[in-house]
Amino acid sequence: MKTGNGTRLFINEVATRDGFQMESCFIPTDDKVVLIDRLSTLGYAKIEVTSFTSAQAIPALRDGEEVMQRIARRPGVVYTALVPNVRGAERALESRIDEFNIVMSVSETHNLSNLRMTREQSFAQLAEVIALAKQARVPVNVSLSCVFGCPMEGEVPLATVLGWTDRFAALGVQGLTLCDTTGMAYPTQVQAVCEAVRARHPALEWTAHFHNTRGMGLANTVAAVEAGIRRLDMSLGGIGGCPYAPGATGNVATEDVVHMLQCMGYDTGMDLEGLIGAAAELESLVQHELSSQVSRAGHRLTRHAPPADFNAIVERAKARPIKKENA
Amino acid sequence: MKTGNGTRLFINEVATRDGFQMESCFIPTDDKVVLIDRLSTLGYAKIEVTSFTSAQAIPALRDGEEVMQRIARRPGVVYTALVPNVRGAERALESRIDEFNIVMSVSETHNLSNLRMTREQSFAQLAEVIALAKQARVPVNVSLSCVFGCPMEGEVPLATVLGWTDRFAALGVQGLTLCDTTGMAYPTQVQAVCEAVRARHPALEWTAHFHNTRGMGLANTVAAVEAGIRRLDMSLGGIGGCPYAPGATGNVATEDVVHMLQCMGYDTGMDLEGLIGAAAELESLVQHELSSQVSRAGHRLTRHAPPADFNAIVERAKARPIKKENA
Repeated sequence: MKTGNGTRLFINEVATRDGFQMESCFIPTDDKVVLIDRLSTLGYAKIEVTSFTSAQAIPALRDGEEVMQRIARRPGVVYTALVPNVRGAERALESRIDEFNIVMSVSETHNLSNLRMTREQSFAQLAEVIALAKQARVPVNVSLSCVFGCPMEGEVPLATVLGWTDRFAALGVQGLTLCDTTGMAYPTQVQAVCEAVRARHPALEWTAHFHNTRGMGLANTVAAVEAGIRRLDMSLGGIGGCPYAPGATGNVATEDVVHMLQCMGYDTGMDLEGLIGAAAELESLVQHELSSQVSRAGHRLTRHAPPADFNAIVERAKARPIKKENA
Repeated sequence: MKTGNGTRLFINEVATRDGFQMESCFIPTDDKVVLIDRLSTLGYAKIEVTSFTSAQAIPALRDGEEVMQRIARRPGVVYTALVPNVRGAERALESRIDEFNIVMSVSETHNLSNLRMTREQSFAQLAEVIALAKQARVPVNVSLSCVFGCPMEGEVPLATVLGWTDRFAALGVQGLTLCDTTGMAYPTQVQAVCEAVRARHPALEWTAHFHNTRGMGLANTVAAVEAGIRRLDMSLGGIGGCPYAPGATGNVATEDVVHMLQCMGYDTGMDLEGLIGAAAELESLVQHELSSQVSRAGHRLTRHAPPADFNAIVERAKARPIKKENA
């Protein structure tokens, strides 16, 4: 393990899309805009603002156009959105999105369960979206679900993952995200997969996306970064659940990951104190306790006062000779 | 990062001491005995049963003698207890403990706050305990608190840590535990500290003890194991809080750490399913939700059923030609 030594990492926020779509209550559009504008000042490389899915499918994000229109777009931040199909792509282009994030699963059972299509059907549909993006000169990122395992099928062979990355690479996408959709990844696996995909397509922008379902999210992040991954998805407060593990935590929490990476000497470009403040705002929006740790415990060097009677303790201790006690 | 490749790791359970002493309600002696007997069958190298501290100081563990007397001691498992002073050592010897675990902090402010003595006073007292243990031929392990930082002083210099390890090594202790008492450790620091102490005293048995206060517990565990540490403290269900971070999680959870290490190919000797069952028993004893993840989400390869209408989804998908959708 090497220290970060100032290596630049690029942080992508997914709370407002991957997180909000899992919340039981609708977050008002005004609040979304205020939160995203706040996030835009904190150093993110990319913010996944919303999803241009049908309002029936994901009512939590039915205000995608309005949010995109009202946020203050800060230069240097890439504003992306999930684009499921041609209709979504048209809406996204009308909203002048900076990037399309398209999604399919490398597991047939998960793709059918989640997107109600076979993988081949998804790929054909996404190929049309990519063609539209190319015409409009909008870059495309592909988020591959279940790269580190499928909750219904179990292990997903690396060859399957590589096969889908090859097919998307051939269509000229800018980047791919390796998603640990339900928190099945473990560190040595992460390292092996990340090294394999990078070796195969070194020119693509690779992103890792971890969930903390089994507590390994931060350990997996370290493994990915060690394997040369420089772009990471994360979710403020750790919001965004996992339907296959009731009660489990969701995405890795932005403040926890950024805190760790900064401690390790990486340059995340992020404002950690600003993140902790934004997490407090988020907690009041979602109206439940966040699963993130640093939002509660603060930076590791947060100083705490000694006990109120500390001076008296010191006096009593100093009055004693250095010898045994019979407590 | 290397795969575990069958490397043997030794797992120490601290829930019944480090965990129970932080619980607000007293766990009945009968329940403690039943739980420890169950834990004894799960593959642990060591179980920290109790503390021979005064009943006034830690009422939660006032039944130390009775618990030690009533548990079924399984061959191969080391039953240890916290021994604060000569009086505690005498009680521990009467209970035929397998090992003394003695504690002091490498931070002066933390030692005064927690133990109400200067570090020199603690060291003098513990030197007497070590002398008693030597007479009785009982091995001694020293748990050093705040090795990776002090919540009141901030960073603790590595030279300070090395100085105290030298002094205890000179007294002939068997092992030392590097405790991240309030969850301030981060992975690259863990690796540096573990490598430094091992290089200096290669014959000592080194243990690492992490808290998950800032979410880094599992990442720190990987770093410690990568640095050659083979013994790890952990707490079933992640119980054991941190007084300096209200609401934060406690020790790293046994089931979460063991699950990760097994996935990575290490030989922990542990029965993971047995641990998950014991965590459920523990949750009913402490009467609050555990912070551990694997006790809720299960093993990463736990299979989930697809949606109830999966067959209908497949039929509909197959009936469609592979072409664009306008959802």
